[in-house]
Amino acid sequence: MAKRRDENETEFGRIVAFSDGVFSIAITLLVLNLGVERGLTEGQIDNALWDQRDTFFAYAISFAVIGRFWLVHHRFFAEVDAFDSRLIGLNLLYLGWVVLIPFSSELLGEYGGDTTSVVFYSVNLAVVVMLGALMGAGARRRGLMRIDDRTHRENQIRSAYIAGIFLLSIPLAFFVPSVAPYLWLALFIDPSARLTAWRAS
Amino acid sequence: MAKRRDENETEFGRIVAFSDGVFSIAITLLVLNLGVERGLTEGQIDNALWDQRDTFFAYAISFAVIGRFWLVHHRFFAEVDAFDSRLIGLNLLYLGWVVLIPFSSELLGEYGGDTTSVVFYSVNLAVVVMLGALMGAGARRRGLMRIDDRTHRENQIRSAYIAGIFLLSIPLAFFVPSVAPYLWLALFIDPSARLTAWRAS
Amino acid sequence: MAKRRDENETEFGRIVAFSDGVFSIAITLLVLNLGVERGLTEGQIDNALWDQRDTFFAYAISFAVIGRFWLVHHRFFAEVDAFDSRLIGLNLLYLGWVVLIPFSSELLGEYGGDTTSVVFYSVNLAVVVMLGALMGAGARRRGLMRIDDRTHRENQIRSAYIAGIFLLSIPLAFFVPSVAPYLWLALFIDPSARLTAWRAS
Amino acid sequence: MAKRRDENETEFGRIVAFSDGVFSIAITLLVLNLGVERGLTEGQIDNALWDQRDTFFAYAISFAVIGRFWLVHHRFFAEVDAFDSRLIGLNLLYLGWVVLIPFSSELLGEYGGDTTSVVFYSVNLAVVVMLGALMGAGARRRGLMRIDDRTHRENQIRSAYIAGIFLLSIPLAFFVPSVAPYLWLALFIDPSARLTAWRAS
Repeated sequence: MAKRRDENETEFGRIVAFSDGVFSIAITLLVLNLGVERGLTEGQIDNALWDQRDTFFAYAISFAVIGRFWLVHHRFFAEVDAFDSRLIGLNLLYLGWVVLIPFSSELLGEYGGDTTSVVFYSVNLAVVVMLGALMGAGARRRGLMRIDDRTHRENQIRSAYIAGIFLLSIPLAFFVPSVAPYLWLALFIDPSARLTAWRAS
Repeated sequence: MAKRRDENETEFGRIVAFSDGVFSIAITLLVLNLGVERGLTEGQIDNALWDQRDTFFAYAISFAVIGRFWLVHHRFFAEVDAFDSRLIGLNLLYLGWVVLIPFSSELLGEYGGDTTSVVFYSVNLAVVVMLGALMGAGARRRGLMRIDDRTHRENQIRSAYIAGIFLLSIPLAFFVPSVAPYLWLALFIDPSARLTAWRAS
Repeated sequence: MAKRRDENETEFGRIVAFSDGVFSIAITLLVLNLGVERGLTEGQIDNALWDQRDTFFAYAISFAVIGRFWLVHHRFFAEVDAFDSRLIGLNLLYLGWVVLIPFSSELLGEYGGDTTSVVFYSVNLAVVVMLGALMGAGARRRGLMRIDDRTHRENQIRSAYIAGIFLLSIPLAFFVPSVAPYLWLALFIDPSARLTAWRAS
Repeated sequence: MAKRRDENETEFGRIVAFSDGVFSIAITLLVLNLGVERGLTEGQIDNALWDQRDTFFAYAISFAVIGRFWLVHHRFFAEVDAFDSRLIGLNLLYLGWVVLIPFSSELLGEYGGDTTSVVFYSVNLAVVVMLGALMGAGARRRGLMRIDDRTHRENQIRSAYIAGIFLLSIPLAFFVPSVAPYLWLALFIDPSARLTAWRAS
């Protein structure tokens, strides 16, 4: 049975606080993938940094992606009026895949041009997006949140778009693994914002 | 002497926030047990990931277990009306054992088929469950929370069930260490939910 | 479109809580740059600690700097009355550069007298300050906060002063890299506090 | 100038939340000092765990100590009615020494019987206690909190007692380094609680 949010503020607050904690730690742990060896000479330091350019790229893209997931999670929970144990359970499963991102990112930074790394990263992020969409759809169906059809449609388009990018990069990774990550730059285009703008015009 | 929660909201809130912080960090640190060496060739990457299958399993089970402990902790503190220094002290001791889980999980991931690792992991988790049950029983006895007998009984059954699984896997680990972890899948069965369903029928 | 803070307390609270989480983790991860090797003899331990004096210095300066950034962020968000997606986006970008500090600090601790490390550290911190100033100026222009001209001017002077210190240390690092970090001690002088004191006299 | 707490709830809340964050991360990072090498045989695992007994001891004592510091900090901020920039600054300095504890603990776990480690650990903890006492005394003198003389006296006794234990273990470390840590078990005796009990009798 679902508990109403306004009657269980502390309990609801803890779910959100725990999720925020996990998000903020996962996003900060990304920095641990960067590192320098000890005892290098002056010229070697520059090389060591340059050799990590893929790791810097993975850092930037993963920070942006986790940040965006947090934002979506944030907006989603702002709309939620009630919660049940299924929502809490799915949220935990969702966070379990979010926490994997620093590892996938390490893999990507270390072996950026490798098929396995790109596939691993893509699968990880696609699962996060799909679990998020599942959580949203379920919450709506079970009456835990009240959003109008249009907003719901927009959220669905957005999720499908992001999941689509990562799913598309999987076959790409088998032929041109080093190109696939560039596809992810399409993440910075927001299709539903454009849709809204286009409708309003 | 016990302080009433509604008169000490900030102080109570900090206990909960600190606990949430510890839980969310402990659960996120699990990802640090996963890692890839530098300088592998393409085929070696796949092998390196495959060799970590036990660590992935340990990650999944530990994430589920810490998540579940957090949930129980969360429900417990939602019922608490007052707190005293003994509750705070026990809570710290409890958290001290929760924080050990990422280490036990590392051990389990690295040496999954080894008696010592399985025993270590089982003892760690059994202690957490028992300290949690102790904290709950004490809080109830000292009048810090008001729950009816039936809910209390259900909580006790649940704790005894989970502690039982881990305690049972200790002798098992001496004979068939690689089988013991499969016993833990029984965690995903909730005995008191079934009990409730059975009673209702 | 901007959302009013007093009508979206939970949502606003999460932005702040997430930022606080990131700040507190980034500042705490600084300790991971310190470390001792295993298996040293008694005399070697003292040497190992002494050899880390640059890392201790980097720890102290980075802790002070992140602490100060947190303080500025804290004061800034205390003045904000409304928020829009641009503010949230810029805040994420800002945090992305804050989280880099433990890595820059590691580099600085390991290779304190090296041009690259000092430049890297300086650029990192200068970018943080400039993004912070940008965030503040934008929030003010879009009417998200109401601060009087004088306070705004003081904030600008303070930002320009801190960014100036780090930008100045970049050319310095090319000629006298080991001297540049001493320039950063000027951070502990607060120019606008002095300005205020001088005006008041 | 001091800001009243009840008029600046969000701002005050962030100081507390940031401190809680730092405390909970520092206490959780302690687990990273524990670790197992890869590729050990069955018998070697047991030895590897047994060789870490000092690290387990350091983990337990440091967890208890940080937990206790958090408790004191928690009680202190529960009494605070107002805050000024000096309190915030001192609090940051205090946290900067708290965050060092995982490193001191690593040193102690690795080289428990060594003079340098014991001195380092003792100095670290003594500084934390003294900064805490300084923060409390200053806050009281500047009228930021209202506590009666008796409570204040008790807090002072408690701080002096804890600081005394760590300061005492410094000379001890020069003669019998492996004995000094046992002195710290005296931490678990609460002198002012006993004092209160004795007065009441």
